Amino acid sequence: MLKTADLPEVMKAAVLRKPFEIVIEDRPVPDIGPDEVLIKVMVVGVCGSDVHYYETGRIGRYVVEKPIILGHECAGIVAAVGDNVTRLKVGDRVAVEPGVTCGTCEYCKQGRYNLCPDVEFLATPPFDGAFVQYFKHRQDFVFPIPDHLTFEEAAMIEPLSVGIHAATRANIKPGAKVVVFGLGPVGLMAVVAARAFGANNIIAVDLEEIRLEAAKKLGATLVINAREHDTLKEILDFTGGRGVDVAIEAAGHPKTLQDAMACLCRGGKLLVVGLPVQDSIPINVPEIVDKEVAIYGVFRYANTYPKGVEILSSGIADVKSLITGKFTLEQTAQALEEARVNKAKHIKIMVYPNGI
Amino acid sequence: MLKTADLPEVMKAAVLRKPFEIVIEDRPVPDIGPDEVLIKVMVVGVCGSDVHYYETGRIGRYVVEKPIILGHECAGIVAAVGDNVTRLKVGDRVAVEPGVTCGTCEYCKQGRYNLCPDVEFLATPPFDGAFVQYFKHRQDFVFPIPDHLTFEEAAMIEPLSVGIHAATRANIKPGAKVVVFGLGPVGLMAVVAARAFGANNIIAVDLEEIRLEAAKKLGATLVINAREHDTLKEILDFTGGRGVDVAIEAAGHPKTLQDAMACLCRGGKLLVVGLPVQDSIPINVPEIVDKEVAIYGVFRYANTYPKGVEILSSGIADVKSLITGKFTLEQTAQALEEARVNKAKHIKIMVYPNGI
Amino acid sequence: MLKTADLPEVMKAAVLRKPFEIVIEDRPVPDIGPDEVLIKVMVVGVCGSDVHYYETGRIGRYVVEKPIILGHECAGIVAAVGDNVTRLKVGDRVAVEPGVTCGTCEYCKQGRYNLCPDVEFLATPPFDGAFVQYFKHRQDFVFPIPDHLTFEEAAMIEPLSVGIHAATRANIKPGAKVVVFGLGPVGLMAVVAARAFGANNIIAVDLEEIRLEAAKKLGATLVINAREHDTLKEILDFTGGRGVDVAIEAAGHPKTLQDAMACLCRGGKLLVVGLPVQDSIPINVPEIVDKEVAIYGVFRYANTYPKGVEILSSGIADVKSLITGKFTLEQTAQALEEARVNKAKHIKIMVYPNGI
Amino acid sequence: MLKTADLPEVMKAAVLRKPFEIVIEDRPVPDIGPDEVLIKVMVVGVCGSDVHYYETGRIGRYVVEKPIILGHECAGIVAAVGDNVTRLKVGDRVAVEPGVTCGTCEYCKQGRYNLCPDVEFLATPPFDGAFVQYFKHRQDFVFPIPDHLTFEEAAMIEPLSVGIHAATRANIKPGAKVVVFGLGPVGLMAVVAARAFGANNIIAVDLEEIRLEAAKKLGATLVINAREHDTLKEILDFTGGRGVDVAIEAAGHPKTLQDAMACLCRGGKLLVVGLPVQDSIPINVPEIVDKEVAIYGVFRYANTYPKGVEILSSGIADVKSLITGKFTLEQTAQALEEARVNKAKHIKIMVYPNGI
Repeated sequence: MLKTADLPEVMKAAVLRKPFEIVIEDRPVPDIGPDEVLIKVMVVGVCGSDVHYYETGRIGRYVVEKPIILGHECAGIVAAVGDNVTRLKVGDRVAVEPGVTCGTCEYCKQGRYNLCPDVEFLATPPFDGAFVQYFKHRQDFVFPIPDHLTFEEAAMIEPLSVGIHAATRANIKPGAKVVVFGLGPVGLMAVVAARAFGANNIIAVDLEEIRLEAAKKLGATLVINAREHDTLKEILDFTGGRGVDVAIEAAGHPKTLQDAMACLCRGGKLLVVGLPVQDSIPINVPEIVDKEVAIYGVFRYANTYPKGVEILSSGIADVKSLITGKFTLEQTAQALEEARVNKAKHIKIMVYPNGI
Repeated sequence: MLKTADLPEVMKAAVLRKPFEIVIEDRPVPDIGPDEVLIKVMVVGVCGSDVHYYETGRIGRYVVEKPIILGHECAGIVAAVGDNVTRLKVGDRVAVEPGVTCGTCEYCKQGRYNLCPDVEFLATPPFDGAFVQYFKHRQDFVFPIPDHLTFEEAAMIEPLSVGIHAATRANIKPGAKVVVFGLGPVGLMAVVAARAFGANNIIAVDLEEIRLEAAKKLGATLVINAREHDTLKEILDFTGGRGVDVAIEAAGHPKTLQDAMACLCRGGKLLVVGLPVQDSIPINVPEIVDKEVAIYGVFRYANTYPKGVEILSSGIADVKSLITGKFTLEQTAQALEEARVNKAKHIKIMVYPNGI
Repeated sequence: MLKTADLPEVMKAAVLRKPFEIVIEDRPVPDIGPDEVLIKVMVVGVCGSDVHYYETGRIGRYVVEKPIILGHECAGIVAAVGDNVTRLKVGDRVAVEPGVTCGTCEYCKQGRYNLCPDVEFLATPPFDGAFVQYFKHRQDFVFPIPDHLTFEEAAMIEPLSVGIHAATRANIKPGAKVVVFGLGPVGLMAVVAARAFGANNIIAVDLEEIRLEAAKKLGATLVINAREHDTLKEILDFTGGRGVDVAIEAAGHPKTLQDAMACLCRGGKLLVVGLPVQDSIPINVPEIVDKEVAIYGVFRYANTYPKGVEILSSGIADVKSLITGKFTLEQTAQALEEARVNKAKHIKIMVYPNGI
Repeated sequence: MLKTADLPEVMKAAVLRKPFEIVIEDRPVPDIGPDEVLIKVMVVGVCGSDVHYYETGRIGRYVVEKPIILGHECAGIVAAVGDNVTRLKVGDRVAVEPGVTCGTCEYCKQGRYNLCPDVEFLATPPFDGAFVQYFKHRQDFVFPIPDHLTFEEAAMIEPLSVGIHAATRANIKPGAKVVVFGLGPVGLMAVVAARAFGANNIIAVDLEEIRLEAAKKLGATLVINAREHDTLKEILDFTGGRGVDVAIEAAGHPKTLQDAMACLCRGGKLLVVGLPVQDSIPINVPEIVDKEVAIYGVFRYANTYPKGVEILSSGIADVKSLITGKFTLEQTAQALEEARVNKAKHIKIMVYPNGI
């Protein structure tokens, strides 16, 4: 094992003991296996799922049953490498893909490793996450970034990956007309992904001006404030009555899902990214048949990180402008609380475990 | 124009004047254009949509506003050919693809001509259909059949085409585990199509024993009577708890649609073929995301007829055994009435406009 | 039929009577059928195939047996519309897709209409082309362009279409590493298409500095002058020894074809666009197997014009900068001669049949 | 670790010390790791590559530099399972996929693990193979087979896998017209695969009657003895002049490769399976462009074993009839020599390491 000269033995970690209670604890810096690297965490984005665990202690079937470290959108520096590690070296600046998969099940074998039932995903119970100074990770899920890419941008590759996966499943190409409903970080990153895949006509829909502004900066052609406008009518007008080729639903809301279906052209594609609170949502099934719609679930992502590094390195979009708050590791509770109570004000809050 | 020696000038047609009123009328044998052929109709299958128009005068946005000739699952003999016709000659035994498309819109250009907005489809208002002794059709939608294929089998290529289109959209290949819900003629033909595409594990679900028997004869591996068994449990047991790769919903019922979603494996595909009466059906949307399901509408078909001729010619399935009633053109009203009132008894009723 | 007020009855046409002999003739302005429009030709790009017919009177199996009008990369204004025309109106500025297909053969039905055996392609014997003041064309191959797109750009959609078709067949997406061999207009447009499809690492190879300069301006990441450098070594160095995902061969030369194969990564794709003079070229077949290469022929294009309009409208590349010569219709012979003798100096020469 | 009661400590192995010298040695039965199983080898097919190593000590860049155990088409019984093994239990009858891949490189991640640069493939230097009584293998490359499938059939899944991979890359579906050139075991298995994927018109070409007979028994529609007939003419006649959709070249010969290209329809696909002796073969490149051919290399296979188990279990073809010789482990040298000198007489020779 090779490691940095100044590697400490003890580190700080922000531990969620129970809902609303995050405590900074001392933890040993982890040992790494032969195929693993140790990541010195430079920046971690606060995700909606972190806030959800912080607030309620569970997401669907995932329940926080013992203290857990949250955070999974992260970037850092390789601080140590295991004996078999060949793809990385100490000192490399890296983006971290948070889900480590088995590599041997039917899904991994077919290249759909996001469906691996044995995935170990950062900050998904019972696995700890990245609000910590150091953590270990298998080398094949760690990706070097070029010098000019910031750690913040590298951390944003995680939500961008969902957008890339959606764009890939939708097979977006130049000429595609695309609408994105719901402009949280994932929806905004879907705008970026759609542009990167060649779409030049992208409509973005949300209720908050700050998010619509952001979408515009990232390259949306038309933004619609659903509070003030008849979304469906606007979309149909914009497309000359034909409808869009691709609708990406990232709001997780029955109304937007129904609008997303209704605004599709014949043969159009609906990408379901957002998780609604309700289990069941009424869907217009005759429309699925009549328009021969295809609906694709989007669960995390696979094989997106190299693409994400390239897309953000190309300078296609200034994703750093989405950062609306910065906190130290000691302020992790404050970061989560801020994200929780000021939803309309924030797009992306960042935590810096080794100093801002 | 070349034509058969004995071509008459007047013929019989079974005309739906209003719901429940079908009258046999004399009509002139139609003239044909340079790209058209005249079909002497030998056999026409009675489809559920024919029964629906006969009973209610409408299907969704299609309304019978003036007298119409029903029937669109047909086969016959070429009785005359237009001056530009090169692919067919008088005397050819043929299957007829009922929808004639424009060939120039964006959908036609992309090979998805089933979505052509200007299609003229037999027996869909305002276009007349095949319960008639002769009708004209553009040559590129008429397909010669080999000598050993019967006219009845050729007529069955129409419902089989829906199955082929579903199997194509699902990309069924050897190894795929498939379930078909709803064993009307289209569901039964989906069983045949799944087998033709290489699936060896096909489950078929219905409420009627006669249809389950038929599915078994056509090659279903397991049949489930949903009246007597817990369908979902049976399917999961059969697949060792994993679920199926492909579910084809041809029943058009909320419960089967929900079962179809629930029995899918991760990454599985749901093909929506059946048109439910309800506009909106509650769908488990988190499951779409979690399992990364793909849902495909199936609207009619495109480029299926040559495949259908080959599949039935190969002898893969004895579809003639599905015929449960035979009627002359004069008995068309009786045929439709029988199909309407004795649903449980019949699978496919045939009408023979030029004699049984 | 609707038409412009000032439509003349007689027009000028540049007719190739035999190799090297182009004569300006008076011709009647053509009548149009109900599905056709009359195009007032504003600009026509000179293509290598035009020069070839001008010089030798044939390309492969296509032989000029009677006088022919050349030119097929064109844009203009709709001067008259037939009675059935709904998609266009008099006065529309348009790009013209030069090949009119049958719409009914197996290839047209499947969306691969570029393989239609009955295509009528401008300036391919025996069909006349666009070095003329007016010609008629079926409406579904004529595409309106936005006001800010110039006629020159619209004419460039023709060579761009080959690039789009190649990028589509290669399924280029963000993250793809691409090399283009041979930077004639088609190769240069392949660079533009690769970028539009999301590629950020594009290598361009040629022998002429003027073309390498142009590739750089259009967005190539690395340009290689094959006269001065070991192309294969440079490509492998650039990709860290891995090779590229996609190689587009637009030079039509045995050496570049072999380099294109050799520089591919495992699983890479080779797009064959260039037509070599030789019929047979030695190919490393074990490499096809060992690296599991896919090789795709690229014959013209299908369904590319709407994409091309969007790509050039987006301002992704200044294709007007490729124009190196402008001629009137009367100077057509001079334009072709200039293109023929000064190959190294010119990229794209334009002819303006209704005045520069 | 769990194991069979009667597991010995020492076993017999057939070791190739140098070309033409195979010696039976005593070897320790191997220990297994936590993710591995021990296979008691019941049957091993002799592959052309085994004969090649036996005869020349090398295949391309793979060179036998130290004693090696050959054999990689095998089936057997699980004799011991490692502590982490969950998919298999002692006593399971299994087919063995011979290449164990890394699971972490870009190719493994994308589901194209046959391109993994770190694969460890049975009987490919420096890795030992299956002419041995026991060997260990990672559990995810071992597949249980149903009771009614024989070990011989299970061993044949290896060459069938190449056929399945070719059929998958060619996207063979019902209606496809397919020709297979070269009817060694891989070519014959390609016939089986094409049928399993739904093709009903399969042409098989070879020089030896015994192989043509075998192809016919396996379901070829037309067989052509290339010694006696003009192959190209026969194929074009059979397809009414149109050509085939898919040509699978499994002969590895310049002439058949050229015929395979020439007999394709427009838009057809050529699958290159056979490795020619020559490095370079002249290919008609203008034809690639004009017909817009796609050529796919086929290197081994990925994700084929579950499909192979299903296909052979379905009884679609009697592959046991291809076995033309049976030998004990002690007779391995004799088996290889017989395969080498009596090529025309044999299709598949089997070795039984634990008794016939």
